[in-house]
Amino acid sequence: MKEFFSARSVAVIGVSNSPINLGRAIAFNLLEFQYEGCFYLVGPRGGAFVGHKIYPTVNDIPEPVDLAVLLVPAAAVPVVLRQCGEKGIRRVVVESAGFRELGNERLQLENEVKGILSDYQMRMIGPNCIGIINRRTGLAVPFMPIRGGEIQRGKVSVISQSGGVGAMMLNALASENLGVSQFASIGNKLDVDETELLQYYLEEEETEIVYCYLEGIARGRSLMELAFKSEKPIIVHKSNSGKTGARIAQSHSASLSTDDQVVDAAFRQCGIVRTREQHEAMGAIKAFSLPPVLGSRLAIISRSGGHAVMAADAADEFGFDLPPLPDEMLNEVREHSRAKVIRIQNPMDLGDLFDLNLYRSLARKALAREDVDGLVFIHNYQGIFDGDESRELVKSLGDVMAESGKGMAVCVFTTSQELDWYRGKVAFPIFTDPRDAVRALARNRDRFRFSPLPFSTERPVGIDASLARSLLRETPGGPMAPHCLGEVLACYGIPLVEWGRAETATAAVDLACKLGFPVALKTGNPGVVHKTDVGGVRLHLTNGKEVLQAYEDMLALGDEVVVQKMAPGGLEWLVGGRQDQDFGGVLVAGLGGIHVEVFKETSIRVVPIVREEAERLIEQCRGARLLVGVRGERPYDRSSLADLLVRVSWLLHDLPEIRELDLNPVAVFERGCLALDWRATLG
Amino acid sequence: MKEFFSARSVAVIGVSNSPINLGRAIAFNLLEFQYEGCFYLVGPRGGAFVGHKIYPTVNDIPEPVDLAVLLVPAAAVPVVLRQCGEKGIRRVVVESAGFRELGNERLQLENEVKGILSDYQMRMIGPNCIGIINRRTGLAVPFMPIRGGEIQRGKVSVISQSGGVGAMMLNALASENLGVSQFASIGNKLDVDETELLQYYLEEEETEIVYCYLEGIARGRSLMELAFKSEKPIIVHKSNSGKTGARIAQSHSASLSTDDQVVDAAFRQCGIVRTREQHEAMGAIKAFSLPPVLGSRLAIISRSGGHAVMAADAADEFGFDLPPLPDEMLNEVREHSRAKVIRIQNPMDLGDLFDLNLYRSLARKALAREDVDGLVFIHNYQGIFDGDESRELVKSLGDVMAESGKGMAVCVFTTSQELDWYRGKVAFPIFTDPRDAVRALARNRDRFRFSPLPFSTERPVGIDASLARSLLRETPGGPMAPHCLGEVLACYGIPLVEWGRAETATAAVDLACKLGFPVALKTGNPGVVHKTDVGGVRLHLTNGKEVLQAYEDMLALGDEVVVQKMAPGGLEWLVGGRQDQDFGGVLVAGLGGIHVEVFKETSIRVVPIVREEAERLIEQCRGARLLVGVRGERPYDRSSLADLLVRVSWLLHDLPEIRELDLNPVAVFERGCLALDWRATLG
Repeated sequence: MKEFFSARSVAVIGVSNSPINLGRAIAFNLLEFQYEGCFYLVGPRGGAFVGHKIYPTVNDIPEPVDLAVLLVPAAAVPVVLRQCGEKGIRRVVVESAGFRELGNERLQLENEVKGILSDYQMRMIGPNCIGIINRRTGLAVPFMPIRGGEIQRGKVSVISQSGGVGAMMLNALASENLGVSQFASIGNKLDVDETELLQYYLEEEETEIVYCYLEGIARGRSLMELAFKSEKPIIVHKSNSGKTGARIAQSHSASLSTDDQVVDAAFRQCGIVRTREQHEAMGAIKAFSLPPVLGSRLAIISRSGGHAVMAADAADEFGFDLPPLPDEMLNEVREHSRAKVIRIQNPMDLGDLFDLNLYRSLARKALAREDVDGLVFIHNYQGIFDGDESRELVKSLGDVMAESGKGMAVCVFTTSQELDWYRGKVAFPIFTDPRDAVRALARNRDRFRFSPLPFSTERPVGIDASLARSLLRETPGGPMAPHCLGEVLACYGIPLVEWGRAETATAAVDLACKLGFPVALKTGNPGVVHKTDVGGVRLHLTNGKEVLQAYEDMLALGDEVVVQKMAPGGLEWLVGGRQDQDFGGVLVAGLGGIHVEVFKETSIRVVPIVREEAERLIEQCRGARLLVGVRGERPYDRSSLADLLVRVSWLLHDLPEIRELDLNPVAVFERGCLALDWRATLG
Repeated sequence: MKEFFSARSVAVIGVSNSPINLGRAIAFNLLEFQYEGCFYLVGPRGGAFVGHKIYPTVNDIPEPVDLAVLLVPAAAVPVVLRQCGEKGIRRVVVESAGFRELGNERLQLENEVKGILSDYQMRMIGPNCIGIINRRTGLAVPFMPIRGGEIQRGKVSVISQSGGVGAMMLNALASENLGVSQFASIGNKLDVDETELLQYYLEEEETEIVYCYLEGIARGRSLMELAFKSEKPIIVHKSNSGKTGARIAQSHSASLSTDDQVVDAAFRQCGIVRTREQHEAMGAIKAFSLPPVLGSRLAIISRSGGHAVMAADAADEFGFDLPPLPDEMLNEVREHSRAKVIRIQNPMDLGDLFDLNLYRSLARKALAREDVDGLVFIHNYQGIFDGDESRELVKSLGDVMAESGKGMAVCVFTTSQELDWYRGKVAFPIFTDPRDAVRALARNRDRFRFSPLPFSTERPVGIDASLARSLLRETPGGPMAPHCLGEVLACYGIPLVEWGRAETATAAVDLACKLGFPVALKTGNPGVVHKTDVGGVRLHLTNGKEVLQAYEDMLALGDEVVVQKMAPGGLEWLVGGRQDQDFGGVLVAGLGGIHVEVFKETSIRVVPIVREEAERLIEQCRGARLLVGVRGERPYDRSSLADLLVRVSWLLHDLPEIRELDLNPVAVFERGCLALDWRATLG
């Protein structure tokens, strides 16, 4: 990737003198961003533009070229790519549209392009994109003209699947006074994808925060692996979440985990911040631009009482405490208060203090305190009487924050014209709403509170994956027979209620006696999806006669009958999973009964997970509150449920042939837990 | 109220030549906003300012004065008020701080002020505020200088409890290009409160949207009554929601309805839009500034494919359909498409079209269609190559929208400098995020979809309120005995399970026989709060012997014992309520069991409610999904539950002596419903 961004010479291919030629905008941008390398223009009609000769082909360029940027008709791309290959160019950005995005009939063209890349060992970004920017070197090749001076140099690097959205991201960062390091629009990502770019940004020094817009995810697990290891915050606006992507699935676990819910869960699991709109993304980037907030003790200092109330509401909402501020600070405020008409506390309402130097000194003192982890500083002015002093105060807060090393959200209320003045003059974000400010500090804090837990790398004891695999090899595709699946679950040490197959009525009675009454009979016909609805389940059978009767009734549903011991009452959960095309195996769990059946409340994880992640999953489910035992009940065995989740996660990971799996219910007892019913679909 | 805003002469009291005198800012604002009346300055030290003589007292002003604005020390307010009274001034704005907000010891001063207002029949806004603005007449008396030119004249009127927040609201409106009509900061609202101001704004012609910031609500029900009748949208940022306001309550209904949840529910009920931050409030105001969206059929036209995807995601999220656009429009786009490299559908992605006149024509055609209720129009440009054409296009969209009379959210992506250019040049809001744009259209649509339902004015048949009242008069305060409460509930036609009191063991057995076994025995001692936890409930008693035994056991908890018929299984709900200090009686209901006990899921309404409101309440509860009968169950009698809710709402309204009420559970059957247990606290 580095070779793309550090190219020292660029050929822009597809330039003409026509006033509607877009290639000219690329040349404009290279000038506007003051590219420190050389660039060459190429176009079949020749001529000149911005003082540069337009060469007929790339081969006519007398010097070597590091990077070619193509903006030629799609049909011409293969020919031009070969010319680039012959010229010895190994990095190309193809901005031309007219490929897969127009339909599958263009896939042939994409395949041809892939072949050429392979022939010449070329790497390509695009097609159907606006290319890349390196703010440091001035390499800027989008075909829409951008004012380089308005894009500050900074620490945010951008990946955008869409060119138009990419340009909006740059504008948004600029308007929030957030600087940019590098930018890439990846379009159809025929060769380079978001994961490869992300890896580069994470390794490269200037980038401190990564901001992405993605409509699809190419390699979900690799993206997660990168995020797990990343010290740098990653913010992704993932769109294309609409119902068109809804899946058709028979099992609960599958229907309870739409593709978009899996994206949500996967991102949360690996610490990627998912946003759904620009305002939210800017809030997250601002949050991560601040020094760390390493605890939940917040100070609030405000010139306006109303804003102090709003900030205190938000502190409550986002889980902050407001420790009392010391007498020393309070006395200082009292001494300087003119009309003595303010109330002093945390939040500190400074309404009546007109010495703005005192504001700064109070901010410094608050941040210096051991019992304060972060500060919301709120200043308001109209820019008429005390404009200059206010500007000085706000500007100086950057130093106060840097000295303390703690996060401070500076909130400024003034006219938007006055706010514009700070752009480029302060190196920290300015907030314009107290709740936004507190939310940012909470986001920053939570990043240090809940580190993501990488995928498990070690199977729990007692798993025999190779036996399970060989069992599956002998099993036909489609719904699995309960005894086959039961054996596979046993290979993973997943506890099942005591059970057995009965091939005859007498065998059923014998088995019932062996297991001990009461027992349940269930049809073992894997084709019956909702067993209860069709009489495929008979519970609480207390003697042989009842078993005989139930057995005969059940034969109507098929020969296969399963006898199970009735389990004592427990708290019922659903545990299951499915294979996702982007992320592989995903685990789904939640409180059973109406909670999954009607309310569809579940938590999702990409597998395999470590034990602590299983505990986080449980904690995140509404059912977690019932596990502790409510209204005098004893607590349930949460630990055994966590163990089962880890085992199921390994099963889903090891055996992708199992397309969908449901253990529903899993009964959790005071000690231990048992799956009472199990279903799966193979292949 | 009109007399405040249409004052033709103003005395500003508390002005001096001192450079730190704040009264001077008031004079500044009157000049800056080009006040069309006369103003007079008053201050004990005399002198002159901005060409105006400073009179020693208000009595020295030679002309009559409509409105006095006071910014004098709190202690001097009574004297100055009397002088104003003597001068014949009947409207005053007191901006001085130093009253109740400093603690209860200042209440005496407030009482003195109240007496003076009454003596002179004066009306007052404040104290502890920044006063009022009428953008039309230029009457602008805040003591912080504001640039009048930046506050456009328009249709939004503002009420703010806090002065600092009020100033921020003005800045925010200005920066979003939303015009202001009138403004009032009400501070301690010793006389004029938000309800009175709201009434004025709702009656007055220039105001079309009301935007409020409130920290407390003075007269909740009156506010609701106004909102019920209002055609104008009302947006309220209500703060002060933190845990400090949490209530201590014994009953479920009370603990399930914190003060802040009641505010939420009350606002939703009467159609007030509650917001919690500025960004959200601006979104709502922008939404209501648009022409109406009278259905859910949306067209999306975008220059950028990525933004079209985002808008389509949001359309799905907010319940819009995207009808196919007609061939005629598609053909027009195809003809003008240069490289033929765009896909055409709804959303329409116009990426390759460079004739901006065509964009406008497509917007007009889309809005003219009968099967389109609203439009999201997304334009992006960098302001370099096609800046002028883009400005012309965006400006002209106002006419397109006005012609069609349908809501169009115009989304513009460009630099913030370029966005600033539109301020004051277009009369419609500009959005900068596709989701924000779609959310605004949804908000606008929903305003016409769900009209608020005013309080009920007619009791259902079979309510004997006077009998209930006389029963209560004879009942001591505190927890009510079950038989007393039972009789009161009966007065309201609230169906209870068959029950009776038993004063002896034999009476209990007789009663059980009369009711029919199985029965339940419960302690009738109102002091026992969690009956089940202390053995105060015995269920499923099937014969006289069991009843005898249970009766004797229960005597340990008190003499009073209740015998009830066991009800058949039903879907259990909790229905109850309490008295709220701001809103009066509030009804609380939700699905019973862990849903209220553990998850605290309830819906709340201010009472009394009409039948349709009861149905909305049920629909809003998660439990509504169970009432239809899941997995083959028959539906429950939703209608009887709605009837019970209406009756309980009237009870809470008629009998405010009942501080807290719980009917828990109310069992809903296939036909009818019954309260199985009831508790209340009096007075």
